[in-house]
Amino acid sequence: MILHGIGASAGIGIGHAVCLREQNLDYTGVVFSGKEEEKKRLQTAVDTFCFRTQAMADDLQQRIGEKESEILTGQIMMLNDPFMISQMQEAIDGGSVAEAAVDHVCTLYADMFAGMEDELMRQRSADVQDIRTRMLGILLGEEAVDLSTLPAGSVLIAHDLTPSMTVGLKREKIAAILTETGGKTSHSAILARALEVPAVLSIPDVLSAIADGAVVIADGSAGEIIVDPDFCTINAYEEKRKAFLEERAQLSLYRDRKTADADGNPYALYANIGTPAEAEAAQAAGAEGIGLFRTEFLFMDRSTMPSEEEQTAAYLEVSEQMAGKEVIIRTLDIGGDKAVPYLQMGAEDNPFLGYRAIRYCLDHSEIFQIQLRALLRAGAKYRNIKIMLPLITSVEEVRAAKALLAACKKQLADEGIAFDDGMQVGVMIETPAAVMIADWLAREVDFFSIGTNDLTQYVMAVDRGNARVEKLYTAFHPAVLRSIRSVIQAAKRAGIPVGMCGEAAADPGLIPLLLSFGLDEFSVSASSVLQTRKLIAGWHAADAAAVTEKAMNLSTAEETERYLQAVHQKEEQH
Amino acid sequence: MILHGIGASAGIGIGHAVCLREQNLDYTGVVFSGKEEEKKRLQTAVDTFCFRTQAMADDLQQRIGEKESEILTGQIMMLNDPFMISQMQEAIDGGSVAEAAVDHVCTLYADMFAGMEDELMRQRSADVQDIRTRMLGILLGEEAVDLSTLPAGSVLIAHDLTPSMTVGLKREKIAAILTETGGKTSHSAILARALEVPAVLSIPDVLSAIADGAVVIADGSAGEIIVDPDFCTINAYEEKRKAFLEERAQLSLYRDRKTADADGNPYALYANIGTPAEAEAAQAAGAEGIGLFRTEFLFMDRSTMPSEEEQTAAYLEVSEQMAGKEVIIRTLDIGGDKAVPYLQMGAEDNPFLGYRAIRYCLDHSEIFQIQLRALLRAGAKYRNIKIMLPLITSVEEVRAAKALLAACKKQLADEGIAFDDGMQVGVMIETPAAVMIADWLAREVDFFSIGTNDLTQYVMAVDRGNARVEKLYTAFHPAVLRSIRSVIQAAKRAGIPVGMCGEAAADPGLIPLLLSFGLDEFSVSASSVLQTRKLIAGWHAADAAAVTEKAMNLSTAEETERYLQAVHQKEEQH
Repeated sequence: MILHGIGASAGIGIGHAVCLREQNLDYTGVVFSGKEEEKKRLQTAVDTFCFRTQAMADDLQQRIGEKESEILTGQIMMLNDPFMISQMQEAIDGGSVAEAAVDHVCTLYADMFAGMEDELMRQRSADVQDIRTRMLGILLGEEAVDLSTLPAGSVLIAHDLTPSMTVGLKREKIAAILTETGGKTSHSAILARALEVPAVLSIPDVLSAIADGAVVIADGSAGEIIVDPDFCTINAYEEKRKAFLEERAQLSLYRDRKTADADGNPYALYANIGTPAEAEAAQAAGAEGIGLFRTEFLFMDRSTMPSEEEQTAAYLEVSEQMAGKEVIIRTLDIGGDKAVPYLQMGAEDNPFLGYRAIRYCLDHSEIFQIQLRALLRAGAKYRNIKIMLPLITSVEEVRAAKALLAACKKQLADEGIAFDDGMQVGVMIETPAAVMIADWLAREVDFFSIGTNDLTQYVMAVDRGNARVEKLYTAFHPAVLRSIRSVIQAAKRAGIPVGMCGEAAADPGLIPLLLSFGLDEFSVSASSVLQTRKLIAGWHAADAAAVTEKAMNLSTAEETERYLQAVHQKEEQH
Repeated sequence: MILHGIGASAGIGIGHAVCLREQNLDYTGVVFSGKEEEKKRLQTAVDTFCFRTQAMADDLQQRIGEKESEILTGQIMMLNDPFMISQMQEAIDGGSVAEAAVDHVCTLYADMFAGMEDELMRQRSADVQDIRTRMLGILLGEEAVDLSTLPAGSVLIAHDLTPSMTVGLKREKIAAILTETGGKTSHSAILARALEVPAVLSIPDVLSAIADGAVVIADGSAGEIIVDPDFCTINAYEEKRKAFLEERAQLSLYRDRKTADADGNPYALYANIGTPAEAEAAQAAGAEGIGLFRTEFLFMDRSTMPSEEEQTAAYLEVSEQMAGKEVIIRTLDIGGDKAVPYLQMGAEDNPFLGYRAIRYCLDHSEIFQIQLRALLRAGAKYRNIKIMLPLITSVEEVRAAKALLAACKKQLADEGIAFDDGMQVGVMIETPAAVMIADWLAREVDFFSIGTNDLTQYVMAVDRGNARVEKLYTAFHPAVLRSIRSVIQAAKRAGIPVGMCGEAAADPGLIPLLLSFGLDEFSVSASSVLQTRKLIAGWHAADAAAVTEKAMNLSTAEETERYLQAVHQKEEQH
């Protein structure tokens, strides 16, 4: 049986299922023993909770890290909130037993957090539910599952893995983590990645589908699990598992190295992120900066615009996480396939050729200026934020955006609010127009970043989401490669740095070309950082130049890709 | 009162309304006078019809041309079809009066033709209705409106102008023609243009909206009429009318000239057409060839694929019309905004970046090969047809299309069917990919034609049909101009000719640039041919080069357009 979910932590896990079913927290049989007595029971439970949680937090901090343990210390703070405690005491004054008071108040808070627009606030709902479960367990004397005693090779299966459950885990015992809920940014996912345990989340009804003790293979990279696999499958995945671990061990050697080719020529290696939370993973993966921070997450899945304060806080969070390193933040890139209902952008026949990104922002300066102000403010403290404008096709668009930025600076200065007056402005090069006028654009901006995903789409006149034409979508096409080369050359001539934040930056076949063209900065997903660093380190400049010359003399995408993949495979064998 | 219709013949007409209302063709009072007598009446009417029609045809041929008179000789042939006559006689045998026989059989045929898929066959429906009306008029002794006695300055208003009605017209008496039906390719439109009488067609209920004798201004260029205009308006339009006629007279001087710049350097000036019928207008307008014959008309507005015979006939018609001149025929360019229901192409999120043109054809070689066979066959007689492939993005696509063409040649040779073995193959350069690999493409083909409409769209990443971004759609953008220049340079280096069939080829502001870049062939709409020839003739190569150098040093579309328009206006004043 094969089940699918969200691959939230890479790697292969093979072991026996350990199903964590809910504790029995039914307190209907508990008799009210008087207000004072119930309040005393509540206080004892709170103290026990805090004591145990603090111990888990200390353990976690020692074994894994500060950030992970903060989830637990955060729970202590929440439960000690005088308002929350007093609401529980009030419930007891009204005749409730301590269990009912905890249940009622925690559920109230969990619902409240769950209904909030801010993603970080919504995460707290899971924390309050965790508090409720463990407080009830303490009050009822119900032992929580003791994960510290799990046998080696356990595939842990739960509805959701609460922060406190994850804590007791010993990584050497756990083959994989499977849940019925949670996504790539859930607590479980973050912890699983920190523990380097493979995890597949949001597998529908996984708890009822798998019996305790069943053999399970979990592929955290593919987001797939195989239950009761045959012997051949187990063998095959065991090979995969070893290869993955070997690769990971090899790559981990590159975590703290500088990015440089085999001759020692340095390159910048950054990460692309979509939320502030991902900055940590980027940091952990050894990224030397953020080459693309997409700001759409702030605007999507909600019903109103994010405020200037909210945006400032999000940008500052990344700035702080990456302090001392560059953070390139792309301004709002909505439209195309990213609809934002409350902005009422309307349907279009060809949204990818439509009203999106900088086009929308320049027409709606009231929205754009809030973002620019937030960026300027967020940069005040660490001075490491740069602004990047998407979908630029003309010099006028850049000038208009810079004029708005200047106006925002003046406003902030007049209002006496701190901001980064020297914040650099760059553009995405992701339209054929921008490629063709890269020399003019270079005079207007501080840096370029080539967005190969959209660029390939426009150069090839292909919607990459359209299955009937996707075979035409390839960065190995000579037209795309020539476009990239010509942009890099234009940047060099103008003396500005040029990066790449599309998927091509992490393509092993393209790396020698990008090195030879003179790309300054590679920005890739956090999970590709080490691999990319390793690949770059494998190239002598002269070899890369020879490969590039040969590749650029091939007239079709197919020949080019075939040649470059063969080169890569040969390199790998060395 | 302002009314709108289809501008079918350019120019301004000012005059008094003459409404041509239907004749009274009610024959219910006619008494059956015996089979033999009715048959005799029928034959007499047929003879009268043929005699009068032949006279009109002769007159027309003398005054206007062969092609126009053929419409009328065609009517004679239709009425003399033995089958048609015998059906009328049968009706009389069944007890019908001659009028009823004519009415019944003509209506039968008209309905039959109207229901046909082929556009040319559908046109015949109007012919049969014309036959019916005039035959009934002859039988009933009803005088048809005598258009030969109209006073000067008549604005002729009719439900539809039948071929026979148009014939008696004296162009010097007619200020304009207005109808309630018909389009740009209807008989009325073709005749009006041949007569150089302004015409606005398909104005809803125009016959009931305008009283006989009312003053009417017709703007055949704008497709607009003004009824009972005030004095100021009349004056203004009188100025417009004079300017138009002066311009036309000036331009007509260029009809039979060769296309060359002021230094005598020759250029080719072709026309873009969408149906075989338009080839005549192109010829009449002085086009030296067809630079783009769109073949979609054969596939649209019908429910099944056109057969190889049908396609061969259509391509041959244009080849014949243009005999001795080049005819560049573009292979099927469906998809995008041109849907063909029976091909079941399906809806797409971004049709302009989707499954269209060559992409569809290469995947459906069974459809594509029929077109290629038809083209090869149609070229056998005059050897003036060239094939042009749309939306090319790669060398592989060209090779695949050429392989299919070679297969078709082999088939035809095996079948012993005549075809043009040496037919040239070229590509549209209308994607950024094609621009970037123009050097590779030039090695595969015999010629290029730059399609600026799509090229601008893809370079700028703008859907030109999307009102919210259309301001970004401009061929004056440096990125578009550089793309055009680089394609022309690549063609020159490879030694193949390069044309342009987008709207930019007729833009007065861009002509000096296209001359300087070295464009070989301008392909424009028939109505722009003379204007373009005149503009080209106005440029000395050195002046054009100076303007080009200055224009190509401007960094924005706005500056470039402003500069080039100012240059054009200055030229005009000389």
